[in-house]
Amino acid sequence: MAHRVVIVGGGFGGLEAARRLAKSDVQVTVVDRQNYHLFQPLLYQVATAGLSPADIASPIRHLVASAPHVEVRMAEVTSVDLAQKRVTLSNGELAFDSLILAAGVRHSYFGKPEWEGDAPGLKTLDDALEIRRRVLLAFENAERTDDERARAAWLTFVVVGAGPTGVELAGAISELARFTVARDFRRFDPRSARVVLVEAGDRVLSAFHPALSQKAYVSLQEHHVDVKLNTRVLDVNSDGVQLPDAFLPSRTVLWAAGVEAPALSRTLGVELDRSGRIKVNPDLSVPGHPDVYVIGDLAYFPLPDGSSLPGLAPVALQQGRRAAKNIEAAVSGQPKKPFKYVDKGIMATVGRASGIAQAGALRLSGMIGWLAWLFIHVLYLIGFRNRLLVMLQWAWAWVTYGRGARLITGTTPVPESTPALPMATVPAREATKV
Amino acid sequence: MAHRVVIVGGGFGGLEAARRLAKSDVQVTVVDRQNYHLFQPLLYQVATAGLSPADIASPIRHLVASAPHVEVRMAEVTSVDLAQKRVTLSNGELAFDSLILAAGVRHSYFGKPEWEGDAPGLKTLDDALEIRRRVLLAFENAERTDDERARAAWLTFVVVGAGPTGVELAGAISELARFTVARDFRRFDPRSARVVLVEAGDRVLSAFHPALSQKAYVSLQEHHVDVKLNTRVLDVNSDGVQLPDAFLPSRTVLWAAGVEAPALSRTLGVELDRSGRIKVNPDLSVPGHPDVYVIGDLAYFPLPDGSSLPGLAPVALQQGRRAAKNIEAAVSGQPKKPFKYVDKGIMATVGRASGIAQAGALRLSGMIGWLAWLFIHVLYLIGFRNRLLVMLQWAWAWVTYGRGARLITGTTPVPESTPALPMATVPAREATKV
Repeated sequence: MAHRVVIVGGGFGGLEAARRLAKSDVQVTVVDRQNYHLFQPLLYQVATAGLSPADIASPIRHLVASAPHVEVRMAEVTSVDLAQKRVTLSNGELAFDSLILAAGVRHSYFGKPEWEGDAPGLKTLDDALEIRRRVLLAFENAERTDDERARAAWLTFVVVGAGPTGVELAGAISELARFTVARDFRRFDPRSARVVLVEAGDRVLSAFHPALSQKAYVSLQEHHVDVKLNTRVLDVNSDGVQLPDAFLPSRTVLWAAGVEAPALSRTLGVELDRSGRIKVNPDLSVPGHPDVYVIGDLAYFPLPDGSSLPGLAPVALQQGRRAAKNIEAAVSGQPKKPFKYVDKGIMATVGRASGIAQAGALRLSGMIGWLAWLFIHVLYLIGFRNRLLVMLQWAWAWVTYGRGARLITGTTPVPESTPALPMATVPAREATKV
Repeated sequence: MAHRVVIVGGGFGGLEAARRLAKSDVQVTVVDRQNYHLFQPLLYQVATAGLSPADIASPIRHLVASAPHVEVRMAEVTSVDLAQKRVTLSNGELAFDSLILAAGVRHSYFGKPEWEGDAPGLKTLDDALEIRRRVLLAFENAERTDDERARAAWLTFVVVGAGPTGVELAGAISELARFTVARDFRRFDPRSARVVLVEAGDRVLSAFHPALSQKAYVSLQEHHVDVKLNTRVLDVNSDGVQLPDAFLPSRTVLWAAGVEAPALSRTLGVELDRSGRIKVNPDLSVPGHPDVYVIGDLAYFPLPDGSSLPGLAPVALQQGRRAAKNIEAAVSGQPKKPFKYVDKGIMATVGRASGIAQAGALRLSGMIGWLAWLFIHVLYLIGFRNRLLVMLQWAWAWVTYGRGARLITGTTPVPESTPALPMATVPAREATKV
C-alpha cells in the first residue's frame, strides 16, 4: 500500500507540496474548505472591485488534474488525532501516514471577536466580496441621505492596520472614490470621501526598511489617505471607531490588524506561539511527531535572532517544497534536511504607480517599485489565462481609471432604511449637484 | 421645474430610455434593486462557470455617468400610486410626471412556488451564482460518496423548459461535464454525467421555425443532452423530478419553464394578461394613464394576429426608445407615435460551435448559426472592456475547453453530510480509479 499523505489547505504551501509529491510514489489527498486555490496577495483587488474572483482563483482539482495520485476533498477539518494518525472532516474521515498542516491563519481581533461584524477582515474570497459590497453600498447610502453628518459617516472609510493588506486596501479605496466613481453620483462629490488608515505602531509597512516605510507614508498622503500612526483602536461599533483622542464616525471599518491560527491548532496538544501558530523543528516537523509537518502562515519557525519567519507566500512555497522532500526522504529511508529560507525580498503597493520593494540591499520605490510589484505578482499568478486577463484588465484600468467589477452581489443588496438616517425624498433637478 | 421621469428597472428597456432621455430637458431617476445593468442573454454562461459576473454586468451609474440630469436610486419599488403619481421605495419615495415601468419578469412555477427551493430559476446574477454553486457542488458530492445510486443522482442534471435559457443551460452543463472537469475527479468519470432537458411542448425552441427546432434537437443529442419532449413535470423535490412515466432521481434541477410579472403589477389596478404582464396601448402607455408607460418583458403588447410581442432584448430596447420619444413628444406638446417593432431576428446557441438563427426568410444553423450568435452577443455587450474580455475568455476556452470561473462561493460552500448519503472514508490508492 502506498504511503498516504494528507495535506490540509490548498494555499501556496499546500498546493506546492501536493505538486511536488505528485511525482512521487505516494497517495496524496488535499483537503480544503474551498474548491479553489486563492492568489491571496491580490485579494484586496477583489475587495475594491478591480478584479473578479475568478481572476485570482483556480480550482484546486484543476491544478492537480494531471496527477492521478493526488485527490482533492472539499471539506472542513474538524479535528486531527496525531496519535491515531486520523483527520476528521465535516463529511468523513481520513487516515494518514504523513500529514502536512497548511491551513493558514485568520484575522484576529486581539480578544475582541465581537468587532468582526462591524469591521470585517480580508482572508477569503467571501471576505473580499463582503468588503466590496460594503464599500460600494456606502456610496449608495451616501447618495440616498440628505443628512450631511450621516453622509460624512458613509463617506468615511477606516482601515485598521498598516501592514501590506491595510495599505493596499486604503490606497485602492481612495482611488475608487477619487477616480472610478468620481462622476457617478449627483448629491455629493465622491472625491470628498475620507480614507483613514489607523496603525498602532510608529510606521507603516514595518516589515520594510524604515526609509521605505517613510516613502510609503508620503505616497499614502499623496493618495489622500489620512494615516494615523501610534494610534490604538479602543472600540469598534456600527457607528465608527473609538480612538484615544476622539470618536471617528464611519459606517465602513475594515480590519487588517493581526492574524491568529485557526481553533484547530489549540486542540493538537503541541507547542504553540502566542497567536496559536505551531512550533516546528528545523525540518518542519512537529516536535514529537516526525510524520506531521506544518508549513506556511500556520508554522512558527524560530530564527536564531529570536524572531520567526513571516507569513509570506514565498516562505509557504519554499516550505511546501521542503516538507514534500522530507516526506520523500522519510519514505525512502533517507535523512531529512532542515528548511532554509531563501529570502528573495518583499514588496507592497500603495496605489496607482506607487510601490515599494526590497531585496537584500536593493530598495525600490515609486513607479519602479510599483512596476516590480506588478511584474512579480502577475508572474506568480497561477494559470496563463488568469495572468493574461489580469494584465489586460489592469492595462484597461490604467488607461481609463476604471474598475470593472463594481457589482453589489449577495443576499441583501438593497440599501436599508435605518432609523439613524432620515428618509430621502428625491427633489427635482434644482437640488442636483453636477 | 423640469419634467420628472421615473424609470423602474435598469435592464435593456429602462437603460435605453434613460440614455435617450439624457439628451432631453427632463429630470430622470432610474430605480433598480441592483446597482448594475445585466446582459441577461449571457447569464447562463455565469451559471455554468464560463464567465464572471463582472463580464456581463456594468454599474448603472457608470453607464449614465455623463448625463447630469439622470440620477440612479438603488432601491426596491414597494408600490406605485398611479393616481397620485408617486412611487414608494424600500428606502424612500419618488414623485413623477411620467413613469416608465421596465421591471421585467421573474421565473414562474405555474402555481407551485414551493418548487423554487429545489429547482432554482435563472433571472438574476445571484440566481446564476446559486446555480453555479449547485452544479459544481454536485460533482464534489459525487466524488465524496461510495454509494453508486447516490452518485448517479448527483451526476444527473435536469433542466425544465426547452426555451433558449433551458437549451443553453443544458448544452453548457453537458460541456462542463464532458470536457472542462473531465480529468478533475478520481472516483468517477464526469463524462458519465447525465443532462436531461424536459419540455412539455412537442419541440425545443418553439419560437423558431420547426426546421431549426429540429436541428437544435439533433444538436442537443450530439451534445449528449437527453431531450424529453411532450413531458410534463408533475412534482419536484430534493430527490428529483416526478415525470408522468417515472421518477427521475436528480440532486440538481434547474427551472427555465416560464415567467410571470412581479407582484407589483397586480397592485396597479390595470388590465393584465394571464401571467400578470401589463396591457399597453399602441404608444406603450397604459390605458387610462397616458403618462405611464410599460416596456420590455413586463409589457403585454397585443399583435393583430391575437399573439403578443415576445420578451426579447431587441423588443425592450426598441420600446425603451419609443417610450422616451413619446415622453419627449408629450412634454413638447407633439403627438405620440405608436410603437412598431422592427424584427431583426432571433437566435440561440446549443453548445460549442452549434447555434441557430433566423431573420425573416434567412435561417442559419450549426457552426454558422453559432458564429452569428457569438458575433451579435459580443457586439451588444455593453462597454468595450467587457466585450474584449469576454472575447478573450471565449477564445481561450475554445482552445482549452476550460471554464475559468469554476468557483464555489457563498455562505455554505462545504458539501454537507446528508442522512441520505453514507459517509465516505477515503481508502488507500487501490480504490482510486484513474
